[in-house]
Amino acid sequence: VASRRRILVINPNSSASVTAAIDAALEPLRLPGGPDILVTRLEGGPSGIISQQDADIVAPRLANLIGRDGADAFVIACFSDPGLHGAREAAKGRPVMGIGEWGVLSALTLGERFGIVALSRASVGRQQRMVRQMGVAARYAGSCPIDASAAESTHSGMGARLIDAGRTLASERGADVVVLGCAGMASHRVAIEEAIGCPVVEPSQRAVAAAIGAVLVRSSR
Amino acid sequence: VASRRRILVINPNSSASVTAAIDAALEPLRLPGGPDILVTRLEGGPSGIISQQDADIVAPRLANLIGRDGADAFVIACFSDPGLHGAREAAKGRPVMGIGEWGVLSALTLGERFGIVALSRASVGRQQRMVRQMGVAARYAGSCPIDASAAESTHSGMGARLIDAGRTLASERGADVVVLGCAGMASHRVAIEEAIGCPVVEPSQRAVAAAIGAVLVRSSR
Amino acid sequence: VASRRRILVINPNSSASVTAAIDAALEPLRLPGGPDILVTRLEGGPSGIISQQDADIVAPRLANLIGRDGADAFVIACFSDPGLHGAREAAKGRPVMGIGEWGVLSALTLGERFGIVALSRASVGRQQRMVRQMGVAARYAGSCPIDASAAESTHSGMGARLIDAGRTLASERGADVVVLGCAGMASHRVAIEEAIGCPVVEPSQRAVAAAIGAVLVRSSR
Amino acid sequence: VASRRRILVINPNSSASVTAAIDAALEPLRLPGGPDILVTRLEGGPSGIISQQDADIVAPRLANLIGRDGADAFVIACFSDPGLHGAREAAKGRPVMGIGEWGVLSALTLGERFGIVALSRASVGRQQRMVRQMGVAARYAGSCPIDASAAESTHSGMGARLIDAGRTLASERGADVVVLGCAGMASHRVAIEEAIGCPVVEPSQRAVAAAIGAVLVRSSR
Amino acid sequence: VASRRRILVINPNSSASVTAAIDAALEPLRLPGGPDILVTRLEGGPSGIISQQDADIVAPRLANLIGRDGADAFVIACFSDPGLHGAREAAKGRPVMGIGEWGVLSALTLGERFGIVALSRASVGRQQRMVRQMGVAARYAGSCPIDASAAESTHSGMGARLIDAGRTLASERGADVVVLGCAGMASHRVAIEEAIGCPVVEPSQRAVAAAIGAVLVRSSR
Amino acid sequence: VASRRRILVINPNSSASVTAAIDAALEPLRLPGGPDILVTRLEGGPSGIISQQDADIVAPRLANLIGRDGADAFVIACFSDPGLHGAREAAKGRPVMGIGEWGVLSALTLGERFGIVALSRASVGRQQRMVRQMGVAARYAGSCPIDASAAESTHSGMGARLIDAGRTLASERGADVVVLGCAGMASHRVAIEEAIGCPVVEPSQRAVAAAIGAVLVRSSR
Repeated sequence: VASRRRILVINPNSSASVTAAIDAALEPLRLPGGPDILVTRLEGGPSGIISQQDADIVAPRLANLIGRDGADAFVIACFSDPGLHGAREAAKGRPVMGIGEWGVLSALTLGERFGIVALSRASVGRQQRMVRQMGVAARYAGSCPIDASAAESTHSGMGARLIDAGRTLASERGADVVVLGCAGMASHRVAIEEAIGCPVVEPSQRAVAAAIGAVLVRSSR
Repeated sequence: VASRRRILVINPNSSASVTAAIDAALEPLRLPGGPDILVTRLEGGPSGIISQQDADIVAPRLANLIGRDGADAFVIACFSDPGLHGAREAAKGRPVMGIGEWGVLSALTLGERFGIVALSRASVGRQQRMVRQMGVAARYAGSCPIDASAAESTHSGMGARLIDAGRTLASERGADVVVLGCAGMASHRVAIEEAIGCPVVEPSQRAVAAAIGAVLVRSSR
Repeated sequence: VASRRRILVINPNSSASVTAAIDAALEPLRLPGGPDILVTRLEGGPSGIISQQDADIVAPRLANLIGRDGADAFVIACFSDPGLHGAREAAKGRPVMGIGEWGVLSALTLGERFGIVALSRASVGRQQRMVRQMGVAARYAGSCPIDASAAESTHSGMGARLIDAGRTLASERGADVVVLGCAGMASHRVAIEEAIGCPVVEPSQRAVAAAIGAVLVRSSR
Repeated sequence: VASRRRILVINPNSSASVTAAIDAALEPLRLPGGPDILVTRLEGGPSGIISQQDADIVAPRLANLIGRDGADAFVIACFSDPGLHGAREAAKGRPVMGIGEWGVLSALTLGERFGIVALSRASVGRQQRMVRQMGVAARYAGSCPIDASAAESTHSGMGARLIDAGRTLASERGADVVVLGCAGMASHRVAIEEAIGCPVVEPSQRAVAAAIGAVLVRSSR
Repeated sequence: VASRRRILVINPNSSASVTAAIDAALEPLRLPGGPDILVTRLEGGPSGIISQQDADIVAPRLANLIGRDGADAFVIACFSDPGLHGAREAAKGRPVMGIGEWGVLSALTLGERFGIVALSRASVGRQQRMVRQMGVAARYAGSCPIDASAAESTHSGMGARLIDAGRTLASERGADVVVLGCAGMASHRVAIEEAIGCPVVEPSQRAVAAAIGAVLVRSSR
Repeated sequence: VASRRRILVINPNSSASVTAAIDAALEPLRLPGGPDILVTRLEGGPSGIISQQDADIVAPRLANLIGRDGADAFVIACFSDPGLHGAREAAKGRPVMGIGEWGVLSALTLGERFGIVALSRASVGRQQRMVRQMGVAARYAGSCPIDASAAESTHSGMGARLIDAGRTLASERGADVVVLGCAGMASHRVAIEEAIGCPVVEPSQRAVAAAIGAVLVRSSR
């Protein structure tokens, strides 16, 4: 019997609550006959990817983990997509999805100009670099920070701040679709969408859906 | 019992062989517990979407079909994405995926510059407009036409011409990932990839994978 | 005696008042020895091009009309430029001008960043796609909607709303030239220009002027 | 009786043959009831605008001439558009058209990617800067020089070299519309178009047509 | 003994106070063993480069001066970079630096989006054209004018207005680095930086530093 | 007595020959009264930065070294600019220059379109991402790899391969200025420039010159 296909979703920070939030958000994507979806956190990773240095520290560890793991596809579940291109080298042809990348790409199909709700001011510059590097800056309305930590992002009390940021992007910056700029905010998505009246993208779900597709298509060759 | 979710994949041309090729290409994406994936062709559509006028003629028909059909998500399975934005209006919030859009977006995650294998010269200008409208022209290496009809694209004899076009894109135009610019070429994908040594994207599979993800995430609200 | 050259200006909506406003705006462009300028409306067209679906519905009808008519050049007099590229195919080499296209191109010669006064919110996304497709997004300050119908646009009472929108584009969005995003607003042009202090472009006049030039140059081969 | 409107077309170089070629090219645009179209050359201008220094030398002279002349609109008939923005200041609201600008803008309506036939290598960099400054680089296939002087450009023997350059732009650089990058090449336009099979734009005619439109519209306020 | 290398810094306007302010700002860049740094003003230049016509008038004079002077490198010390490309021709391979160019390029290394403090409204359009011509518009947050003359820019009382403009760029336009858009503002740089909390670039110093580097490297061939 | 200012140039790879080549290339920039310029290699770094993973591995080490070192400015002497943005965080306001960044920025002042001579195919994608992230893709003619290691780049025998690559960029890709895409090629610069007839930029020298300027200006506050 062919062994079951497996997608490994890696939270590059060491936060248990963020890891659990990601895991819960992916539940609807687990299907009989579909690939296994495992969520793990990076051993010894920082508590959150706040600075560029945090992103740089986890990058070689992610490549290392991916190079040694036998999964069929990988998802880097941090919106900064730390180490994404090095991870692709390490994966030797197996798909590696970044949630930043897929959050943005999905947004391109739901509106004309996307805005990003950023956890902190420190991540705004990183998102600007990512958007330019992707070559999609013509569709970027900007990022709006809520000044929270990654762990806080899963709290129920975050809802109001996320809605405020989404509203700012939609009413002042001209966004007509909003991307949640962190892996752990899925539980807030529908409430924000209803409050601000435009589509809100949860990036982990989108990246994993893309990984499922890639795995299924590759399996069938 | 909740009824099963359903994705309707619409081939805007009336070709039975292209429709069958699309249907076969999507087989690996049909999972127990996942959404049903139905492939249909547009009644009375042209035999292929060759000209811009062909695309314009099917656009209102697609919107009409989508407005009347109860599916949970739709995929327009022609690389020109005819009527995509009107279809989104008609879908009233349900996801509508274009295979041109998703072929291109997926390619952005597999290389730095994508090229498109075009069926005919007449579609090159349309692809150039699509790429600019998407705002991703900075990553576009160009389109290379093979001067075939949509129906021919499914023939086994097409392989060599597709490989030639892919090779031109990779070696002369600087593409490091190639997108198949037609819905019916899935059976050639692996052979082209092996021949030219860079990733080749089959767009229908990618668009339907995205639709599956969107349906599953929406179902779980 | 050579027959007189003729430009057919087609209002894709069925509004008599908009058609009359276009016709009046073109009066100064009718010259002895110059081409005839006829203005017509599309039989059975929608009352206004509000949605993308409206634009999609008229596109094949415009191509059909143009393919059958013997005029020397055509102007599609709706700012969304519905069916412009299909119409060019149908015209078989005769010039087809879109007023959206020419309104924007003319603005590029009158300032550094153009803004568009949009009739309705629904047309803003369409204008954003048009500007990107044209490849001139680096010069676009944005669109400001006035929430009016096409028929209302010809009313004298519209002046104040148009001035407000123009002022918003100039003072808040950084536009230094404003394009009227509808075919029927010519009578307001001078008043807006004087009120906001920067050039205001009426697009139908510009597109027809370009058509005159194209016809005269072609006639002289 | 109201005095007749007048467009002054200024050839910034002192070449009599280029001036005469421009004058002849504009003949079809002279209409009873339309504005007078006068063509003049800049007293003491260089024999051709070869270098950037040539363009810089004529710029203040053009502004000076325009500031003192009572014409209703002006056309700077050199493809480098020397001094265009200073000339607009000097014109105090009267239209000033550059033939470079209008050649390029017109090309945007005739194809997806335009190429420019350049007189000399020295003008290629200037054209690249102009295209970037206009913000339309996404549609620029490049310039191909023929290594001729401005005076030579009017010779009948130039046809073959112009056709070669146009063919290079179309077949090797991906242009589907070609702009003649000099004021004096109008007599070759049709032959090049027929030889290379894609539209060829003569920029002086386009700029003057735009000036006619601007004058007529302004006259009617 | 080899003669000492020399950099000629040319203030294109005739203001003695601006020339003196530039000279003072460059003092820290004068090193034993390094090139001489001479600052001069353009004989008979305008009192300030306010309009595009001012810039156009000095352009040929700058080229003329540079062509006749034996310096090893040149810096055009006006933020509009008047005549920069013609000056490069005249310099016949010797480096010519524009302070506008180097102010902007330096800012690209200090933040993600730069804003420019402009002396006057009239210079904003010129800066927009310069930024587009350089091809860096994707990183431009905009210009904010303070409505001062070049001579005023050196006054101590200018500080508050410069800080206001810098703050507007940072807090309302999304700039995270600010460029001083005039040659004479160096004495205000540190105060603005401290007041607004993001890097502030003085362009003359940056252009001269680049010229020093270019001279030293060329000397060593 | 104030201690002497110091610039630390870090070669992120462990190659002694590359480090020595960089050190030699910087000799002309060492001036009496100017900052000390020290060149070091990263302890335990890879022998060359070939892959993205190599770049990712050195990034946190560079930030760490910079955070602990007391130099006044830093230059990361690898064309991939590994860890540049994290290094800037670690430098806490002291300037950090990347040679990739400064090679490209300097090229923008020497021509209209720059090409990059890449060491290996593996670095081309990284350069494409860097150019897009910098926001200067509109001026990028492409990269041409010579398939050499970093250590080989210093060999005298490399000259012919570098000239070939430079010539390809100039004659086939439309570059009019070429950047050496590695830290150790300075000794070949003049020969390539003379062979291909357009300016060739050595990036380490340019980055260090910029660092000198930044240090001198900061010292003088």
